[in-house]
Amino acid sequence: MRIVCLDLEGVLVPEIWINVSKKTGIETLKLTTRDVPDYDELMRYRINILNEHKLSLTDIQDVIATMEPFPGALEFLDWLRQRTQVIILSDTFTEFAQPLMRALRWPTLFCNNLKIDAQNMIVGYSLRMHDGKMHAVKALQSIGFTVFAAGDSYNDLSMIRQADAGALFKAPDTIVLEQQSLPHAKNYDEFKALLIDFLSPSM
Amino acid sequence: MRIVCLDLEGVLVPEIWINVSKKTGIETLKLTTRDVPDYDELMRYRINILNEHKLSLTDIQDVIATMEPFPGALEFLDWLRQRTQVIILSDTFTEFAQPLMRALRWPTLFCNNLKIDAQNMIVGYSLRMHDGKMHAVKALQSIGFTVFAAGDSYNDLSMIRQADAGALFKAPDTIVLEQQSLPHAKNYDEFKALLIDFLSPSM
Repeated sequence: MRIVCLDLEGVLVPEIWINVSKKTGIETLKLTTRDVPDYDELMRYRINILNEHKLSLTDIQDVIATMEPFPGALEFLDWLRQRTQVIILSDTFTEFAQPLMRALRWPTLFCNNLKIDAQNMIVGYSLRMHDGKMHAVKALQSIGFTVFAAGDSYNDLSMIRQADAGALFKAPDTIVLEQQSLPHAKNYDEFKALLIDFLSPSM
Repeated sequence: MRIVCLDLEGVLVPEIWINVSKKTGIETLKLTTRDVPDYDELMRYRINILNEHKLSLTDIQDVIATMEPFPGALEFLDWLRQRTQVIILSDTFTEFAQPLMRALRWPTLFCNNLKIDAQNMIVGYSLRMHDGKMHAVKALQSIGFTVFAAGDSYNDLSMIRQADAGALFKAPDTIVLEQQSLPHAKNYDEFKALLIDFLSPSM
């Protein structure tokens, strides 16, 4: 039985923190792991900024609710879900992803959770596990699945390498150049062609 | 992070083989594992009957397409998917489940596959693995999920026992009597109450 694991941000929806930064006007929320390589440090930094600006989870969710999936993302995902099983593997947080999951018609999402206090302020986060995307692919393989994995970033490479087949999707040139052994789909039509190969009976 | 694993037939949709039997008028397709305890023998028997009656996969799918989820099943599942992650764990076959998955808005389904020949006749099947439901729960736990599992039959007991929490749903009296340590939800409202407990922050 086959299953497709997809990264969320950059593949089906825009980068959440960058959009929160744009829409709140808080420049410092634009920093990513490229600027602050230590994820834990970066998250503590972001949570501090949100608290400084007195932005609660609801405020952030309201901002995220104004975001939309990429044009064509819903049609692509509907097409895929009618043909095989799909799980979204993301390093984001359930609480942030929710408005976008609604827009994508509630595909199954494996990600992380925020810690919220009684005033609905974000006080921390809990990662399901380290390198969660790769381990999710491994767990699916352990119960008899043949897995295709795709994403656009460095944090997707270990799951793509672990999977039985995989691809980069709309990845930055630097990653595409570094990972020349991986197929690269530049749009949903190219992506569909790769997936049709994966889903063909001979695979 | 929490996830709910649901059996399909008897929980969200009627029993597929019994309905195929009713709608095709082929009485012998009504047999279940209660009548023929060896699943492999039962499946070979069913496939022989389909071939005798020259029923192709498409014929069976057309019959299944006239079936509908239980009243309230879609609303229940929509309610649940907005609150947590859900995976349907079933011993049925993707090819049979498809029309019902469409009616349920494509939740993620882990099940098995049929083997089809060039004439679209069913010639065999492949199980993803033995005791696949229980192993799926175990795999989800291994990647950091707290799992709730529910079903109505004997083949659901090992996954319910493996899960962190679980319940029987509309199970026959014999099973309810034998499994008195398990909660039993007799309808979707009772089921929701159990799930609200599971999803509460203290769990």
